[in-house]
Amino acid sequence: MKKILVVDVGGSNVKLMISADEKRRKFRSGPKLAPEETIAQIKEVAADWDYDAVALGFPSAVRDGKILKEPKNLGKGWVDYDFGKALGKPVRVINDAALQALGSYDGGARTLFLGLGTGLGSAVAWEGHVLSLELGFLPYINEGILEDQLGEAGMERIGKKDWRREVTRAITQLKIAFIADQVVLGGGNAKLIEELPEGVILGHNRNAYPGGLRLWEMQADGKTSKWQIL
Amino acid sequence: MKKILVVDVGGSNVKLMISADEKRRKFRSGPKLAPEETIAQIKEVAADWDYDAVALGFPSAVRDGKILKEPKNLGKGWVDYDFGKALGKPVRVINDAALQALGSYDGGARTLFLGLGTGLGSAVAWEGHVLSLELGFLPYINEGILEDQLGEAGMERIGKKDWRREVTRAITQLKIAFIADQVVLGGGNAKLIEELPEGVILGHNRNAYPGGLRLWEMQADGKTSKWQIL
Repeated sequence: MKKILVVDVGGSNVKLMISADEKRRKFRSGPKLAPEETIAQIKEVAADWDYDAVALGFPSAVRDGKILKEPKNLGKGWVDYDFGKALGKPVRVINDAALQALGSYDGGARTLFLGLGTGLGSAVAWEGHVLSLELGFLPYINEGILEDQLGEAGMERIGKKDWRREVTRAITQLKIAFIADQVVLGGGNAKLIEELPEGVILGHNRNAYPGGLRLWEMQADGKTSKWQIL
Repeated sequence: MKKILVVDVGGSNVKLMISADEKRRKFRSGPKLAPEETIAQIKEVAADWDYDAVALGFPSAVRDGKILKEPKNLGKGWVDYDFGKALGKPVRVINDAALQALGSYDGGARTLFLGLGTGLGSAVAWEGHVLSLELGFLPYINEGILEDQLGEAGMERIGKKDWRREVTRAITQLKIAFIADQVVLGGGNAKLIEELPEGVILGHNRNAYPGGLRLWEMQADGKTSKWQIL
């Protein structure tokens, strides 16, 4: 079986995992992070780790393993970037919230994944399917979008108390809008929500690791496996 | 092959279709419409039509053919109501926007269906799948929900000009949020939008008819067909 390195690219940090147990490693990310620098840092940070292939979770729209547009909270140059060539290993790319969903989903109920970090990650999962979404772009107050309120910049602008109220209301309504049985809340800011609404649970960022394994269990065409990434 | 009667339950009218060509029939709906009255009217309006089974599109959350909650814009008593027993024919129930999606989707691209009527209908379709949604409940301005602005009552409150602007902005952002290649706009008020944003087309309510046929082509468990209704 292949040994998989899982890389979770976020707006504040890039996290690297080589197994379910071993301590995660990370390096700083930010609004200027470009793919070349990311690859150089991955090579350095994971230099003593042995791996055959990479699963990369990325905070923008991804379909069929291709990044569809430049991320809102990182630098430029990601669309069409050839990660495999740069890293010298096969790389599969998936939306970051979809990676969490793929690793966390345990069958049964329809589950909505929301990631509260620099931006707002989102995916919905049900039996054998993960549909990645970009709910941060939903229309919202002041002619803006939902991420303006729920993301890191929103929290800093409106303050933690109002941000908590906004997040709670948004989660409650999103759960109804997606006819979801459950909401899993992940991302670095999830722990700041003190009272979770009914049907909402906290996720674990380490679930990105089993997500990466599942991603590599799939056939290359993504269609003959028991999982469809949509 | 079974002869199917398709019934599209809306907030203003209930539409009945017996074929792709024959003129639709309808009767008035409204905030007090109950299932008993609906069945009585269906029997009367379709008295001279011959049919073996019924496909019923319904404006509320439906899963596995069951209405999950009372509709926002009709009367009460719909959850657990036994349509088949009341009508004396087998009845399959599906969300009304999902019925449109099932009848209109022609393969390929990811398509978001939005129905502008009394409320806001919604479903997303891609290869072999229709996922019904309740996007009217998305959090929106003034501590309210999206349907408050985009539905019929919203149009009356804010006026057609502002309503058009709201609808256009919402569609544009929803298309991004669902990573949709296309938006199909249906419902009685769709024709009031004069300039459709790029990637948005008008649907045809008569697509409910082929949607009903497809619904009855499925196996009873909904799983072995080429369509999954989610």
